[in-house]
Amino acid sequence: MKQLPSSYAELTEMIHAQDGTRYPAKTLVTMELQPGYERAKTKMIFPMLAINEAHLIMLMEQNIVSRETGALIMKELESINYAGYTDHTYTGQFEDLFFEIEHELIERTGGLGGNLHLARSRNDMCLCLAHIVIREELLDLIRIALEVQNTLRLFAEEHRDTLYVVHTHTQHAQPSVLGHYFLGAADLLDRDISRMQRAYEQVNRSPMGAAAITTSGFPIDRQRVSDLLGFAGFIENSYDAIGNADFFTETASAVSLAALNLGRVVTDLILWATEELHVIRVADGYISTSSIMPQKRNPIALEHLRASLSAVKGLADSVNLVFFKSPYGDISDYEDAEDHISRTLELLKTNYRLFNAVMGTLEVDRELLRRRAHESFSVVTEMADEMYRSYGIPFRQAHHVVASLVKEAGARGYNLKSISRDFFAEVYENITGQAFAGDFSAIQKSMDPDHFVRSRDVAGGTSPQAIQYMIASAEKKIARRRDWIAAEENRIDQADKKRETLVSSIIK
Amino acid sequence: MKQLPSSYAELTEMIHAQDGTRYPAKTLVTMELQPGYERAKTKMIFPMLAINEAHLIMLMEQNIVSRETGALIMKELESINYAGYTDHTYTGQFEDLFFEIEHELIERTGGLGGNLHLARSRNDMCLCLAHIVIREELLDLIRIALEVQNTLRLFAEEHRDTLYVVHTHTQHAQPSVLGHYFLGAADLLDRDISRMQRAYEQVNRSPMGAAAITTSGFPIDRQRVSDLLGFAGFIENSYDAIGNADFFTETASAVSLAALNLGRVVTDLILWATEELHVIRVADGYISTSSIMPQKRNPIALEHLRASLSAVKGLADSVNLVFFKSPYGDISDYEDAEDHISRTLELLKTNYRLFNAVMGTLEVDRELLRRRAHESFSVVTEMADEMYRSYGIPFRQAHHVVASLVKEAGARGYNLKSISRDFFAEVYENITGQAFAGDFSAIQKSMDPDHFVRSRDVAGGTSPQAIQYMIASAEKKIARRRDWIAAEENRIDQADKKRETLVSSIIK
Amino acid sequence: MKQLPSSYAELTEMIHAQDGTRYPAKTLVTMELQPGYERAKTKMIFPMLAINEAHLIMLMEQNIVSRETGALIMKELESINYAGYTDHTYTGQFEDLFFEIEHELIERTGGLGGNLHLARSRNDMCLCLAHIVIREELLDLIRIALEVQNTLRLFAEEHRDTLYVVHTHTQHAQPSVLGHYFLGAADLLDRDISRMQRAYEQVNRSPMGAAAITTSGFPIDRQRVSDLLGFAGFIENSYDAIGNADFFTETASAVSLAALNLGRVVTDLILWATEELHVIRVADGYISTSSIMPQKRNPIALEHLRASLSAVKGLADSVNLVFFKSPYGDISDYEDAEDHISRTLELLKTNYRLFNAVMGTLEVDRELLRRRAHESFSVVTEMADEMYRSYGIPFRQAHHVVASLVKEAGARGYNLKSISRDFFAEVYENITGQAFAGDFSAIQKSMDPDHFVRSRDVAGGTSPQAIQYMIASAEKKIARRRDWIAAEENRIDQADKKRETLVSSIIK
Amino acid sequence: MKQLPSSYAELTEMIHAQDGTRYPAKTLVTMELQPGYERAKTKMIFPMLAINEAHLIMLMEQNIVSRETGALIMKELESINYAGYTDHTYTGQFEDLFFEIEHELIERTGGLGGNLHLARSRNDMCLCLAHIVIREELLDLIRIALEVQNTLRLFAEEHRDTLYVVHTHTQHAQPSVLGHYFLGAADLLDRDISRMQRAYEQVNRSPMGAAAITTSGFPIDRQRVSDLLGFAGFIENSYDAIGNADFFTETASAVSLAALNLGRVVTDLILWATEELHVIRVADGYISTSSIMPQKRNPIALEHLRASLSAVKGLADSVNLVFFKSPYGDISDYEDAEDHISRTLELLKTNYRLFNAVMGTLEVDRELLRRRAHESFSVVTEMADEMYRSYGIPFRQAHHVVASLVKEAGARGYNLKSISRDFFAEVYENITGQAFAGDFSAIQKSMDPDHFVRSRDVAGGTSPQAIQYMIASAEKKIARRRDWIAAEENRIDQADKKRETLVSSIIK
Repeated sequence: MKQLPSSYAELTEMIHAQDGTRYPAKTLVTMELQPGYERAKTKMIFPMLAINEAHLIMLMEQNIVSRETGALIMKELESINYAGYTDHTYTGQFEDLFFEIEHELIERTGGLGGNLHLARSRNDMCLCLAHIVIREELLDLIRIALEVQNTLRLFAEEHRDTLYVVHTHTQHAQPSVLGHYFLGAADLLDRDISRMQRAYEQVNRSPMGAAAITTSGFPIDRQRVSDLLGFAGFIENSYDAIGNADFFTETASAVSLAALNLGRVVTDLILWATEELHVIRVADGYISTSSIMPQKRNPIALEHLRASLSAVKGLADSVNLVFFKSPYGDISDYEDAEDHISRTLELLKTNYRLFNAVMGTLEVDRELLRRRAHESFSVVTEMADEMYRSYGIPFRQAHHVVASLVKEAGARGYNLKSISRDFFAEVYENITGQAFAGDFSAIQKSMDPDHFVRSRDVAGGTSPQAIQYMIASAEKKIARRRDWIAAEENRIDQADKKRETLVSSIIK
Repeated sequence: MKQLPSSYAELTEMIHAQDGTRYPAKTLVTMELQPGYERAKTKMIFPMLAINEAHLIMLMEQNIVSRETGALIMKELESINYAGYTDHTYTGQFEDLFFEIEHELIERTGGLGGNLHLARSRNDMCLCLAHIVIREELLDLIRIALEVQNTLRLFAEEHRDTLYVVHTHTQHAQPSVLGHYFLGAADLLDRDISRMQRAYEQVNRSPMGAAAITTSGFPIDRQRVSDLLGFAGFIENSYDAIGNADFFTETASAVSLAALNLGRVVTDLILWATEELHVIRVADGYISTSSIMPQKRNPIALEHLRASLSAVKGLADSVNLVFFKSPYGDISDYEDAEDHISRTLELLKTNYRLFNAVMGTLEVDRELLRRRAHESFSVVTEMADEMYRSYGIPFRQAHHVVASLVKEAGARGYNLKSISRDFFAEVYENITGQAFAGDFSAIQKSMDPDHFVRSRDVAGGTSPQAIQYMIASAEKKIARRRDWIAAEENRIDQADKKRETLVSSIIK
Repeated sequence: MKQLPSSYAELTEMIHAQDGTRYPAKTLVTMELQPGYERAKTKMIFPMLAINEAHLIMLMEQNIVSRETGALIMKELESINYAGYTDHTYTGQFEDLFFEIEHELIERTGGLGGNLHLARSRNDMCLCLAHIVIREELLDLIRIALEVQNTLRLFAEEHRDTLYVVHTHTQHAQPSVLGHYFLGAADLLDRDISRMQRAYEQVNRSPMGAAAITTSGFPIDRQRVSDLLGFAGFIENSYDAIGNADFFTETASAVSLAALNLGRVVTDLILWATEELHVIRVADGYISTSSIMPQKRNPIALEHLRASLSAVKGLADSVNLVFFKSPYGDISDYEDAEDHISRTLELLKTNYRLFNAVMGTLEVDRELLRRRAHESFSVVTEMADEMYRSYGIPFRQAHHVVASLVKEAGARGYNLKSISRDFFAEVYENITGQAFAGDFSAIQKSMDPDHFVRSRDVAGGTSPQAIQYMIASAEKKIARRRDWIAAEENRIDQADKKRETLVSSIIK
Repeated sequence: MKQLPSSYAELTEMIHAQDGTRYPAKTLVTMELQPGYERAKTKMIFPMLAINEAHLIMLMEQNIVSRETGALIMKELESINYAGYTDHTYTGQFEDLFFEIEHELIERTGGLGGNLHLARSRNDMCLCLAHIVIREELLDLIRIALEVQNTLRLFAEEHRDTLYVVHTHTQHAQPSVLGHYFLGAADLLDRDISRMQRAYEQVNRSPMGAAAITTSGFPIDRQRVSDLLGFAGFIENSYDAIGNADFFTETASAVSLAALNLGRVVTDLILWATEELHVIRVADGYISTSSIMPQKRNPIALEHLRASLSAVKGLADSVNLVFFKSPYGDISDYEDAEDHISRTLELLKTNYRLFNAVMGTLEVDRELLRRRAHESFSVVTEMADEMYRSYGIPFRQAHHVVASLVKEAGARGYNLKSISRDFFAEVYENITGQAFAGDFSAIQKSMDPDHFVRSRDVAGGTSPQAIQYMIASAEKKIARRRDWIAAEENRIDQADKKRETLVSSIIK
């Protein structure tokens, strides 16, 4: 272990020796500035150019910068070798990539390039970069989420008539079809996506023009810059534009809930993958074997999903915690949050991709599930209903008869197929005190799980018609959201083209 | 300490002695059933009646229950002394309040009341109760949030021209007006409320008709029941209606972010309440003194807000954690979540009320803030801008001149008022290498914080016009949301009236 | 909806009308002071007396308060009807219960009672109350946790030779005995308890003597007060004594991890309670049935445990969040935390009690589990080991033979009992390229799950000896911790007695 | 946007085309196996060798592997070019690095190397790797934490007599010395470190010998392997050894609380860095300026610490969430947790380094702080004490006199120095109703903040002696913990040497 300093003076000297005495100190560089620079040069250099172009166009249109000066600056701005910056490393000569590029521009323009920063600040600009980067990452996440939603729909369609027994509270509850569950899961995801879209609304607003925090004394046009960057609008109050973190926190919360919801489905899949339940069989590509138990077939992909979706929640919360109890205002803290939100979005994307691959290759032993449904007592809700329907026995009493019948059957070791008219009549009489004189055929029919499923022909039910309606409806929802994505892509695209045209006309 | 059992048999005997051997065991009663019963009898008894009415009306309209039977059941349903149930305590004779009331109804109707439970289950019914209760609690929260938003607006209006210096990164940044900050805070809250409204959309959907989880073989009308309970619609997929927890988790997340955002403002207020910054003075009602430091004036209301808003985040997360990795399906877990979400909503309401009272009585020493603004170097952004405007000096270079001027002024102990033409000219020449020959009056004007604030006359800025626009805009946003609340109240009200009318016509 | 005020003046007036203008404002009373008073009068009144006694004894011993004055104050202190305070309600006349009781004391002593507050402050005193209250709650939690640990031990003993198949990654892995799992669970809990004990060390330290935050100019004896209150010591640095929250946060973290660990066992029990796995059968007292599915047997106690243990994590985190980013110093925030930590501890206790009752009455179908173990391929690790042992085949190659054998057996529909010498030899030759000439009896024996379990006779293994050793070791761990509790109880008890004796001698 | 598949068959085909149909599927490789391989080859290759050596030595000593076979395996084991593996990339030929290296070993030994895996499994082995890696990372964290604790001690020593006014609840409370606060902060950190050490106890235990989960039928010596790897012991119950995650979760919790505690100090430093409070001045290396506000001096290092310490809490919780509600048993989930715990530990280290550099170069304007202390009314606690001491006025009454005096002084615009005998006497008479006849000099002295601080000469107080004692005590605590680290390093070192010696003697 290294020796610790024994006086404050010695300590200070040690730190000076290691960190230097001028900004930026080496430790600060290592912890913040260098990683920030790496991030900026990878993700932000072209968004930064877009902001520079949009801002300069506006400054010229508003006559804040003259035609000639503007043209000169634009020309040099376009001449810089941005791709080359990806080879740069942080030297400490410039605080950050922004200053480094501004420096090159000023050099190229004999000082006039400094005017590009009129009526703006790194405050609005760096936040705007964050908006642009997260906008792209979030759109991408939504694209993948829609693929998963489509996969759930297709799986549901494939299994629209795969009979199985629904568990509730770990116990056999009622017969259903597997597609019914997965249409539910598709709706679960649909709500997740709608939360992402609403988070996107916060992301897709421009802070430009807020400058440091009070806007500017120059007659800038904030709407124009917003349009030229493809935003849906700008954040009006300039204090709020700099101070609010809702585009981080609402995104993080949407992602957190999406991980929670998908995680619930994964919990079910893991249960279903047990040898005992065996509702599903994960494809070979996604299971591993053991180094000492040669018989094992471990669905590790599902376990990794469980673990990784859990971590998404923690990472998402780390974004929220950055802003929790921090001042409402201009704070550096959001720079740290940028890295965490990107990681969180990326991790959820990875999970979606793996879930999609597992779901898209899942095998189901339909015969086994069908056999179980036909052996299980899970149909008996319908038997009680039928007693009301056919014989007018009040439901609660019918329920008692059936409960007693199931109990007695258990005691005698009967399964569903062993329920004869005589046995039924015996229990019936025991409970109601009256001899059973009705027609037994309706009761018999009520014990057929296929009948059970088909007869649930109301909105959202398990009948073929209800299922078909929901499949079609899921398809429409997916199509609608993909239209939305296309519209957003188009808006951004149009803005890019508009900017390009204006830049060309300026520098030509 | 009591003796521990020394064999499993002894242990089992001890537990049987204490808990009994039949359902419900005493420990389960104490932990879950009794608190659940208390909650049900306090909050759910009338919503349960509403569901019973709506469901019965539908059963009759669909000819599932006959006219006469329906009328009989309805008559007795209306005759039960519900208010009297608030004196009941949990006895264990009935599993829960639902069964207790059903029992009374069956007794009163010679068994026919059992038919009320046709085509439904406690699954859809208890979830529906949760939807109704949380709907009311959430509406109430939004009402109070709007009061707070209005308070922020009024405070902003009151201080629309109260000059002060904005801090960024703990340092004096620029002059502004206090109202500008609070209009930002009002927008922050506006987004919180919009998230609550969207959570409300999840809450305001009926699960009725899902029955246990697969709907029913009876030809029920789910839309009708939904309408009669004032819901905006029903959750289509019946598996999803029972299994999804989005109305819990989206509500919890909205509340969590609202606590985070308000907490950021509270962080600022606490800083501003220090004797050194003294931007605000909390009114006497909300400060306490010390038991041994007689000079103290502690703004404890703000500290309690900080602490209590923190706890809201933890409580909200406890709701999400209940569903995290739980199966997607019918699980008892949501019963526990109900208590936690109610507590969370209530705690945020309490915080809004206290924040509202503190904000509505806050004193500001306008003169002090003004004096500081006039002494601070926070105006110098404008000075650099003005050098560009008046003399055409490129912005970055102007920025260097000003930075040097501030540094030199510091060295000489000058404050803002000491910046003379000569001093300016000296620094100017040092940096630019050229003698200063310009008119100094524009520079002088640029050093006036009132000018600074007035000149920021762009959207979202600090000028009187921009501020006035935002005040009006805040007023409109609040009015719009209050209209929304009124519409929701009206929808629920109309449904109640409609039900009443139908009930009357049935039992007359 | 009520009308919103339309000007700040109107708003202020409304708040004044509702809250009053003097401390304490009604909203503050409702939110903080009243709940605080209720809590204080219920839980803190006798601890407060203990502090008053201990502090006064010390003041007299140090000659800070004279013999006569001290005796007079002590006499009146002992004469107050503390029990009567439980009928009081908060009136606002006194800020809190402390001031109310001090007021009565001063009245009774002609003003001299005011000296009781010499050399202390509400700061150290209220924190000391929190230490005393949490100390008792935490000790109580540990007592119950030890009951659960004992239950796990007894269950393990009961099932020390109950053969079953361990799942890993949802798949059958190896034979074991059920007791082995629960001895593991007992160790899991043992670590939880050790964390609680270490949190207790933070709790069991006195802040008294820190006064407001800098100690006092009077020559107080902090050790003496600590001893008289049964603490293990005092928190030395007086700033730290007031400012640190470790006794809250370490307790909350210990509780959070305990909930996490127990929750993992509950996850397993829920899986094991499925009809398909049926490893356990929850006793009748803890299962419920369905309102429409008469065949159901829902282990809802386990689901409530899952949900409620989840909430414990959220509640515990709400305690940590209170202190997260709050200043290190004297802050009111801890008053809010007190309520949350108590709730958290109470909720975990409730969960332990329910878990204990469920575990203590759990049924196991030993025959079923045994049958499964004898049919499963989970023994084959041992077969590979035996091939090395008997024939010297390198382990990895033996593993390949066995893997191939299992695969081939699956293809032919063989179960474990169908593995004949011929079949083995065939596979053996296929993989190794050599005829199998060995003795098959060892291989045959290796396929016996009973042999499998018995032969794992190393520390921590499944052999009867290893299991017996762990049972005895669990018993010792429990006994040791119960000794610790007894010692702590004794320390507190002795301090109470010592105080009583001194008080008697003073007032006699 | 790419076209979505329109049938399940098409979807499956797409996934097969992209992922392949055999293990490991490409998506699984990208998400888990490749990152796992990268991590393994960077961090785990030498720990894996150590485990191989220790396990083989034990197998030979226990006569499970013969002398000759063991020597051959060991020789080849030592001949492998491990460093060369850092150039490997994941190909999918082997599931993971373990199998790749085992393959090489088997090739080199003509198959006999497969015996190295006798009596163990990847389960115990990979967990053991995690224990070894986290052990090193945690030790390293503690080392750095001790540097910070030393820095706090040295800063405290440097400012052992730097007078300043303590704030409580944002208000001036009492005079103190700056060193007193930082000695408190050093104790705060001391508790953090003690939690890390206790987490280390969980980390520093070997799971080896648990094999898959039931130990082995071979007569292995678990203690021996543990010793040869430098562990303090082994985790007894083999189920627990594989299933428990306490070494993850207790580490994560300790780190989370450490971030919370340091964050509280950072909150204070940020407040103190405001221009208004100006208690501290962050050195030039750690502040940045503004791109448009040339006067700014932003202590961004402190803001990054605030943000980054917040993220540590979220990251740490992501580790706990991985295990929350996951089964207690052998699960793949911990593999994901490894990456998250490493990141979390690394991020806290980074924060400690930056905090250390900032603290070690912090400037304090002693004169300013001293002047404020002399102008503030924060001394008046002592004045009330002195009235009791000199005149025997009961404390509560003295407190009233002083409170009135402060209020009246405020009304008249007096500061502390303006409190004359006449003024005091006037207030005294108003409150007590008696003329003041005492000696005023003691009161006058009580108004001296230096006297205030010096007179608090009890354990933990502010007097020079008390401070000196705490400085010495902090030094001792640090030394003791560094001794602990040295002992741990030594234990590991000795184990490494012992292994080396045995390996040499085997292969020679």
